[in-house]
Amino acid sequence: MALRVGVIGGGQLARMMIAPAVELGLDLRVLAEDEGMSAGLAATAVGDYRDLETVRAFAADVDVVTFDHEHVPQDVLRQLVDGGVVVHPGPDALQYAQDKIVMRRRLAELGVPQPEWAVVRTEPELQAFLDEHGGAGVVKTPRGGYDGKGVRVVRAAAEAQDWLVALAEGDALLVEELVPFVRELAQQVARRAGGEMVAYPVVETVQRDGVCAEVIAPAPAATERLAEVAEGIGRAIAEGLGVTGMLAVELFETDDERILVNELAMRPHNSGHWSQDGAVTGQFEQHLRAVADLPLGSTALRAPWSVMVNILGGPAEGTIEERFGAAMAEHPQAKIHTYGKAPRPGRKVGHVNVADADLDDAVYVARAVAAHFD
Amino acid sequence: MALRVGVIGGGQLARMMIAPAVELGLDLRVLAEDEGMSAGLAATAVGDYRDLETVRAFAADVDVVTFDHEHVPQDVLRQLVDGGVVVHPGPDALQYAQDKIVMRRRLAELGVPQPEWAVVRTEPELQAFLDEHGGAGVVKTPRGGYDGKGVRVVRAAAEAQDWLVALAEGDALLVEELVPFVRELAQQVARRAGGEMVAYPVVETVQRDGVCAEVIAPAPAATERLAEVAEGIGRAIAEGLGVTGMLAVELFETDDERILVNELAMRPHNSGHWSQDGAVTGQFEQHLRAVADLPLGSTALRAPWSVMVNILGGPAEGTIEERFGAAMAEHPQAKIHTYGKAPRPGRKVGHVNVADADLDDAVYVARAVAAHFD
Repeated sequence: MALRVGVIGGGQLARMMIAPAVELGLDLRVLAEDEGMSAGLAATAVGDYRDLETVRAFAADVDVVTFDHEHVPQDVLRQLVDGGVVVHPGPDALQYAQDKIVMRRRLAELGVPQPEWAVVRTEPELQAFLDEHGGAGVVKTPRGGYDGKGVRVVRAAAEAQDWLVALAEGDALLVEELVPFVRELAQQVARRAGGEMVAYPVVETVQRDGVCAEVIAPAPAATERLAEVAEGIGRAIAEGLGVTGMLAVELFETDDERILVNELAMRPHNSGHWSQDGAVTGQFEQHLRAVADLPLGSTALRAPWSVMVNILGGPAEGTIEERFGAAMAEHPQAKIHTYGKAPRPGRKVGHVNVADADLDDAVYVARAVAAHFD
Repeated sequence: MALRVGVIGGGQLARMMIAPAVELGLDLRVLAEDEGMSAGLAATAVGDYRDLETVRAFAADVDVVTFDHEHVPQDVLRQLVDGGVVVHPGPDALQYAQDKIVMRRRLAELGVPQPEWAVVRTEPELQAFLDEHGGAGVVKTPRGGYDGKGVRVVRAAAEAQDWLVALAEGDALLVEELVPFVRELAQQVARRAGGEMVAYPVVETVQRDGVCAEVIAPAPAATERLAEVAEGIGRAIAEGLGVTGMLAVELFETDDERILVNELAMRPHNSGHWSQDGAVTGQFEQHLRAVADLPLGSTALRAPWSVMVNILGGPAEGTIEERFGAAMAEHPQAKIHTYGKAPRPGRKVGHVNVADADLDDAVYVARAVAAHFD
């Protein structure tokens, strides 16, 4: 019988696991939040991932549980594991992707380079940090943020007042120095439970309004040293945190040539979508291999350069599919991936991958195709 | 709403359309012969493709009908079309893939190079053909043959006696000269209804016991002239027969440097599986684009060489999936595609693709991985 991989969450990341699961003969089963989600084709259950009984019933029919997102509560995960369910990544690892304060503390223990940071509960505490770090900082709610939500650049403690006053007993905010970065990078690593790891080349990511807009793989003008440092950080975190599956490490490259860890994700990640068409083993196949405890696949490049451009929002009128004709006719080499979502401003509704021997050509084509969906 | 593409037949070809359909946001629906077929994940109906009402009910919920195989009867297809259903390839084209005598006649009209052939109904007629062609020939039942079934090499008319005596009124056998070929090739072309076409490079196919065993893309040592002639034949047939979707033309390369048409298939074909991992646009995505009347994708190679080796039969004991670990650990660059079928001697249960800059390496790795499943 085919191995049953259960994915909690029915978004586009679960959806993009369908294709490699079919080819590898894995029985992918999805617990979706609603009917008609991106991964609806593989949905075998619909329900609330915060509800233990819902998750437990779903997990009873699968061999391993993995995730489309990091939002399943720790107590639910720990009761699954206590009940004998195989969960990858497990709650011990996942806590570091769920809580940014817990993550910062652990990365400090591991000696991984990261921005200066502090835990703050009051305006004076926050103001003191800002004063010590050039008068500015990045305030983050430790849990639940994504795509720029729960993150705010402040130049005075009062600018975070609403978050501070809303803090529950025992909660806190994270504040980080405003890193003078020259660009953002991302390092992806896959790890099996037994410790086997593979790394993808470090990539450059371009964010707009806190949302990933473009990715170039590998990162242009990355020196051998930069690539080695980034890979080393990715491997150290995957190993140190006991990650199973894909790990994405978002990085800052500073103007004084340091690399600092920004955020973590323990699942396939937007910064790795290029690998679907640009690497021998795409990140969705790699994640499935890792969580199914199969040997990891080659991360070799299929082309010297890959460019991914997100389709954000989608057309103001009509559907994405209606624009396929013009986009495809103009650029037959572009790979369009759609998420089966209705257009909505700012929403990630698809992406375009282009792999090419020439970086400028790849950037031009990927942007031109994505622009058809504006 | 997503375009609904209905596939008649739930075999591995329909299964391998699932991955690109998900990425392109097409709503793939399959009429499967049984529960638990290869393409079961996308099955929305189960029934007999020879039954008009079954097919008509299935077709009522899709925007275009296409195929996993060529066995849907002409009268069923024609009644669908008469009822306003969009069918690609249409019955006018598909008849040439369904009846080898009809195909030979039409290719002769088109001036396409093919083996010497004749229609025979009696032993004397067959013997006369053999006598005129070196004492040997290939006898074929015009309809229903596949993977070597319905094909017999004979050196005396009596060797086809059982088929001859079984002929119904009006039926006949096809006999073709035994072509002194040095190797077999295949040319794949995709065509949209409006006439747009793209061609893949001609490939070399290796058959064992009448079944495709290996494919090398592009065909090694193919001269520019050979590639042009093969592509020209593919395009002429796609255009002349009005094919929509993928067309595979199986070819003989003779020892006197001619290329002759052996067989046709109007769907994704075993000789094109390499393109899933070796071309920018795989044949399954290309077929979907063509039948959905979307612009065709680039057929450029992702690597200088691609090798496909079929997994035939599968392990005598246990499952294909149990062998994944050893096969993947040894060759992380191999792409394994499984069909979700139980092992059975001679059955096509999966294939391995390897794309590489070095042909010998690609052949070695693809064979080594496939051997894990013996």
